Amino acid sequence: MRQILSLNAFNLADAARLDSHAAAQVRRRAGLFGAASVLFYDQPLQIVRGEGCWLYDADNVAYLDAYNNVPSVGHCHPQVVQAVARQMGLLNTHSRYLCEGVETYAENLLSTLPPALSNITFTCTGSESNDLALRLAQNATGGTGIIVTDCAYHGNTSSVAQVSPSALKQGQLSSHVRTVPAPSALTVGADRLSAHFAGLVEDAILDLQNRGIKFAALLVDSIFSSDGIFADPPGFLSDAVAVAQRAGGLFIADEVQPGFGRTGATLWGFQRHAVEPDIVTMGKPMGNGYPIGAVVTRPQILTAFCETIGYFNTFGGTAVAAAAGQAVLDVIAGDGLMDNATQVGAHLRHGLAALALQYPLIREVRGAGLYVGVDLAGQGRPAPVLARTVINFMRERRVLIGAAGRDGDVLKIRPPLCFSIQQADRLIEALDDSLRAALSNGADPAE
Amino acid sequence: MRQILSLNAFNLADAARLDSHAAAQVRRRAGLFGAASVLFYDQPLQIVRGEGCWLYDADNVAYLDAYNNVPSVGHCHPQVVQAVARQMGLLNTHSRYLCEGVETYAENLLSTLPPALSNITFTCTGSESNDLALRLAQNATGGTGIIVTDCAYHGNTSSVAQVSPSALKQGQLSSHVRTVPAPSALTVGADRLSAHFAGLVEDAILDLQNRGIKFAALLVDSIFSSDGIFADPPGFLSDAVAVAQRAGGLFIADEVQPGFGRTGATLWGFQRHAVEPDIVTMGKPMGNGYPIGAVVTRPQILTAFCETIGYFNTFGGTAVAAAAGQAVLDVIAGDGLMDNATQVGAHLRHGLAALALQYPLIREVRGAGLYVGVDLAGQGRPAPVLARTVINFMRERRVLIGAAGRDGDVLKIRPPLCFSIQQADRLIEALDDSLRAALSNGADPAE
Repeated sequence: MRQILSLNAFNLADAARLDSHAAAQVRRRAGLFGAASVLFYDQPLQIVRGEGCWLYDADNVAYLDAYNNVPSVGHCHPQVVQAVARQMGLLNTHSRYLCEGVETYAENLLSTLPPALSNITFTCTGSESNDLALRLAQNATGGTGIIVTDCAYHGNTSSVAQVSPSALKQGQLSSHVRTVPAPSALTVGADRLSAHFAGLVEDAILDLQNRGIKFAALLVDSIFSSDGIFADPPGFLSDAVAVAQRAGGLFIADEVQPGFGRTGATLWGFQRHAVEPDIVTMGKPMGNGYPIGAVVTRPQILTAFCETIGYFNTFGGTAVAAAAGQAVLDVIAGDGLMDNATQVGAHLRHGLAALALQYPLIREVRGAGLYVGVDLAGQGRPAPVLARTVINFMRERRVLIGAAGRDGDVLKIRPPLCFSIQQADRLIEALDDSLRAALSNGADPAE
Repeated sequence: MRQILSLNAFNLADAARLDSHAAAQVRRRAGLFGAASVLFYDQPLQIVRGEGCWLYDADNVAYLDAYNNVPSVGHCHPQVVQAVARQMGLLNTHSRYLCEGVETYAENLLSTLPPALSNITFTCTGSESNDLALRLAQNATGGTGIIVTDCAYHGNTSSVAQVSPSALKQGQLSSHVRTVPAPSALTVGADRLSAHFAGLVEDAILDLQNRGIKFAALLVDSIFSSDGIFADPPGFLSDAVAVAQRAGGLFIADEVQPGFGRTGATLWGFQRHAVEPDIVTMGKPMGNGYPIGAVVTRPQILTAFCETIGYFNTFGGTAVAAAAGQAVLDVIAGDGLMDNATQVGAHLRHGLAALALQYPLIREVRGAGLYVGVDLAGQGRPAPVLARTVINFMRERRVLIGAAGRDGDVLKIRPPLCFSIQQADRLIEALDDSLRAALSNGADPAE
């Protein structure tokens, strides 16, 4: 199990290589955050300002942000900032008082989802959302068994860490968790992908049953972010979802990564696959940085759960969280961000595909909307060291990207949804330059 | 197990008793939030504005807020609002870039805690903090057994719900959880309380051991909020903490409720008891409503945990969360809120004690700083129905309080820390009036 969370992580042992100011900074951070401290890049960045798709360091050097998906409508979008500031100055209480803005936001959000999913529970984070979703599914089915992909990440609570193999550095997953490989058209072929993935899910359900563990849910991030970004062909989830639901389990769509227009053509990632989830979870970009999450499900699932235990989330569904969430929905619509994600995403993938013709080590360019993965391989084998080199070279060229995939060999490109054609071109140019530099520096793609 | 979380909850079946506008509002909410919907009061409030200790409804009627502890430095405190608005307009990213404001805030916060607790992990909520604390304790000790008080509430994730007996409506606690009664000087006597409570903890540790469950931690909210608020005599936790630590377990101080000056004389609740925790968890008032939490511990505990699994929290320790947290620390100091909590809290308890001389059904007035419990009983038995009546009568008199305790018989008074002497007097007058009205209405305190 590879330690995906620390991909592109600065190694504190390298502090001595930094200038004295930077070394002091990283040591200060490490002293405070301890072993959980993770800074990006071989030369960590101190960022002081953000605007649109740009981040600025303390020397006012501008970096093109093609990594951060939380400030999804753009860093410090004035409409969101104003909505939050205004509501914070007016009122910010929990949801045990009526609040017009909360009700309206809940209605607007639910109107984007299948009508059967008519109850919403606000949380504060995607982790809390997935944590609650697992409890809902296990209560509804009477089972405990959960199926996830083998490099999935679903959050940081005790319960969701158990279904997040990518966070595990050593040891084994709990006995109630089964993993299946992420659906890759590259290895299986586009035509066979849906049936193949469904077969893997079916095998996992049978394996759970054979060990006396009742199946509860298939939990999937429909863009397979930490697995390495798998998006095509649309619809490849449909057979697996049918298998899971036929077996009496629920399908939980984890929309923390693909939701809120990230994939372009649809607001939700699961809609690309024409499937209907039993539970949808949300987080990250929902408030453009203001912490807010949600779980949406059918009333009978929530009602059954609430018979045993209460659920209340102090920071979930506050007046300010709703103001932030509503502003994000308004900006996605008002700024035409789904269309932009579709168009700029297509332009970006097209340019990256052209680059792949020059660089055979680009095994595949994948993605939907503005979630793009560039799979690097040397002699048919994953190239994580090359990926790391390229990411750091991109940083030197002032373009920020990250890594994904079980082997850390997939460049993760996931800019704010206001990314422009010109910015996409700049990214492609920087990647061309970085790949060339990496190879001429003697980087071995087969390493 | 009583359903403490729904104390003072509106019953949807009573919607028909409301006027048509209010009935439509509560039905709208219930339709959206489903079975998890909980509104306060027999006549739910729609709040539109807050300032200091005041909340205003849609008709601009002012309610004195003696309940809400999240907006701890006062609703919509301009210094916090401005700090958040300014930082949101500047930058709001996760903690994988260096950020001067985050480092400085972490240092300032850690400087208020015992020096051995030198590592901080930022989370987004108190639930996430306690969830991580349990994992740290279980990893550090190799045990799973957790001891909590029998009406404790520590949060809403799958893991911390298991150590929150007050949230459980039916069913049993997990086998790794043991409960002990909250330490009550009323039933045990002040002199014997520390030794008595330690004895209960010792018995629970032995019971765990006898069942082959290794003890991991004593997890305590040092003001015992949901148990019914137990504060005196200071120091009554010391023997129990010594027992727990001698047995190889950790002491986790859950400061989500008592922290950040709530108890007046000390910034942290555990300091009143002169004990040193192994882990401290924070949440609720930390950002005055902006979602932020933290776990503070010794480096070796965090390091050992991080060898197995990574921990990252997207919304934890962002630039904006740090700005909110720093502003709260600044306001607590600048506005003299700990002194105010001490003085106004003493005045309030003094006035309530005087009321107790008139009303024998006030069994005890408890608390520290501005966390006050008024224990109601008729003929020596808890009086939950009376408490509910009084809370609703207080609401009619435009003063907001809540309920706590296993039997829901303790009035929970927990205003923002800027509560004034005049506001305390107003609360006492309203309580006098509400108690008189409840009794003359034929409320039976023995019910």
